[in-house]
Amino acid sequence: MSVLVVGSIALDTVKTPVEEHSDLIGGSASYAALSASFFSPVRLVGVVGEDFPESEFEFWKERKIDIDGLQRANGKTFRWSGEYSWDLNTRQTRSIALNVFKHFEPVLPKAYRQSDFVLLANIAPSLQAHVLDQMERPRFVVADTMDLWIETTRSDLDALLRRVDLLILNESEAREMTKETSLIKAGRRIRKFGPRYVAIKKGEHGALLFGEGDQFFSCGAYPLEDIHDPTGAGDTFAGGMAGYLAGTVKKVHFNDLRKAMIYGSVLASFCVEAFSLARLRDLTMDEIAKRYETFKLMSQFEIID
Amino acid sequence: MSVLVVGSIALDTVKTPVEEHSDLIGGSASYAALSASFFSPVRLVGVVGEDFPESEFEFWKERKIDIDGLQRANGKTFRWSGEYSWDLNTRQTRSIALNVFKHFEPVLPKAYRQSDFVLLANIAPSLQAHVLDQMERPRFVVADTMDLWIETTRSDLDALLRRVDLLILNESEAREMTKETSLIKAGRRIRKFGPRYVAIKKGEHGALLFGEGDQFFSCGAYPLEDIHDPTGAGDTFAGGMAGYLAGTVKKVHFNDLRKAMIYGSVLASFCVEAFSLARLRDLTMDEIAKRYETFKLMSQFEIID
Repeated sequence: MSVLVVGSIALDTVKTPVEEHSDLIGGSASYAALSASFFSPVRLVGVVGEDFPESEFEFWKERKIDIDGLQRANGKTFRWSGEYSWDLNTRQTRSIALNVFKHFEPVLPKAYRQSDFVLLANIAPSLQAHVLDQMERPRFVVADTMDLWIETTRSDLDALLRRVDLLILNESEAREMTKETSLIKAGRRIRKFGPRYVAIKKGEHGALLFGEGDQFFSCGAYPLEDIHDPTGAGDTFAGGMAGYLAGTVKKVHFNDLRKAMIYGSVLASFCVEAFSLARLRDLTMDEIAKRYETFKLMSQFEIID
Repeated sequence: MSVLVVGSIALDTVKTPVEEHSDLIGGSASYAALSASFFSPVRLVGVVGEDFPESEFEFWKERKIDIDGLQRANGKTFRWSGEYSWDLNTRQTRSIALNVFKHFEPVLPKAYRQSDFVLLANIAPSLQAHVLDQMERPRFVVADTMDLWIETTRSDLDALLRRVDLLILNESEAREMTKETSLIKAGRRIRKFGPRYVAIKKGEHGALLFGEGDQFFSCGAYPLEDIHDPTGAGDTFAGGMAGYLAGTVKKVHFNDLRKAMIYGSVLASFCVEAFSLARLRDLTMDEIAKRYETFKLMSQFEIID
């Protein structure tokens, strides 16, 4: 089954303590769509400008990423530039130019309106809601968000949360949203805002998943010694989760979400091994399956010798 | 098989944002010994003063904690007083009075010298080494440490590490010891200092275990909404690990250490539910087994419905 992915598409400049690259394909939808495409066909909704490389359209088509919902606007593509601290744990935005993204209004092609699975990758909650407004009862809605929307458009976000099945956010955002320091309390509290399921990303510490009652799943992060570029890891995680669900599951149960979260983590672990989408571009299903199995062994309480 | 536990025995005053209690039984050996005693007989080495409550000696005997190695010295018991921040994540030491601990020199009764399993709970590395000096080739040595020893007695600690099978430390200590920000790099690096195995405690984020080559295990923390007193959680974790190994395993393999780490986490999760040793005193093996199973389900990648 297809998954509809809406979000930002950007050209990034990324500086780490070791390297700097510019004009990289970035944005939440770019990472999420490519990540999801390993598991299911994707319908991409977003906007690019005239400077966006043609080659990427070809790549998307090869990957069964449908771009009928992609708008090509006059002007320049959204640009973001960021710099990471020495340990890659924090980053500063150096510049943002919204460009064609400033007036972006997602319009779904008719064929997209019946998509069963939707990933509202990280963009303003009002845009995320606008996508849902055009849809005919999607079966499962995944939404990603960020601190900016919690701080500046909280009422839009609150309205959106009531329409979301799975909310994905990171640990500081979960704490900020609930004013709870305990992530266990925060996760359970966010469910009361609307989402049936909540996934809290903890970076190097893995992720937590909350469902009804005492439904709870905790997994570590796949252990990596060398991280080259953390950009897009969260979007890749969300894309992996939504793609796995769309491609594999008819009716989503908690146990499907566990596996989705692990696949999301695996995809994110590949993402950070290189700049931009470089590692995801040549990634194979075999590599994903192998890392999933290794990850499982590393997390298993009991091994039958 | 018995496990020899050496460490501090204290009378604590603990203040949280909600409660304050004084004259609590505390110290690394008190927590570690009680935790270990769920899985194996314990031989306790430490020192108390004249003000130490007689009732505790009786309690230890009931729990099969052998106190032939316990010294009763003239003077007062070691006292520690600490206060936790509003979110219980950090604490400040308000006062320390070493008292009888100042001149403590562990002396092993003859029967203790052949113990196969040893837990060097958190005390100065020179005292930990002094215990090993008196022993006849212990089979498996577990050592806990803290930032104070990394900062003030590093050469003693380095000498000790070459005699340790499993080193337990927390995430900030692992980073401090290695100057690595990645815990994966830190864990692997510490193994090169001597210990065959390294366990890194991450509090609410769980724990990591490193062994030879790519042997690696990651587990989350058991999810608790309400923590009453974090004091002794790390000591209880170490005691649970060492006790489980001593009570269950002849020759320690990586898979035994996984289970030991989970039992350590389970015991620590009970410890923090009440002040001092209160929750551990009335804890049953049934409760431990039940929480182990729940914890396993919450961490399992795939559940066969």
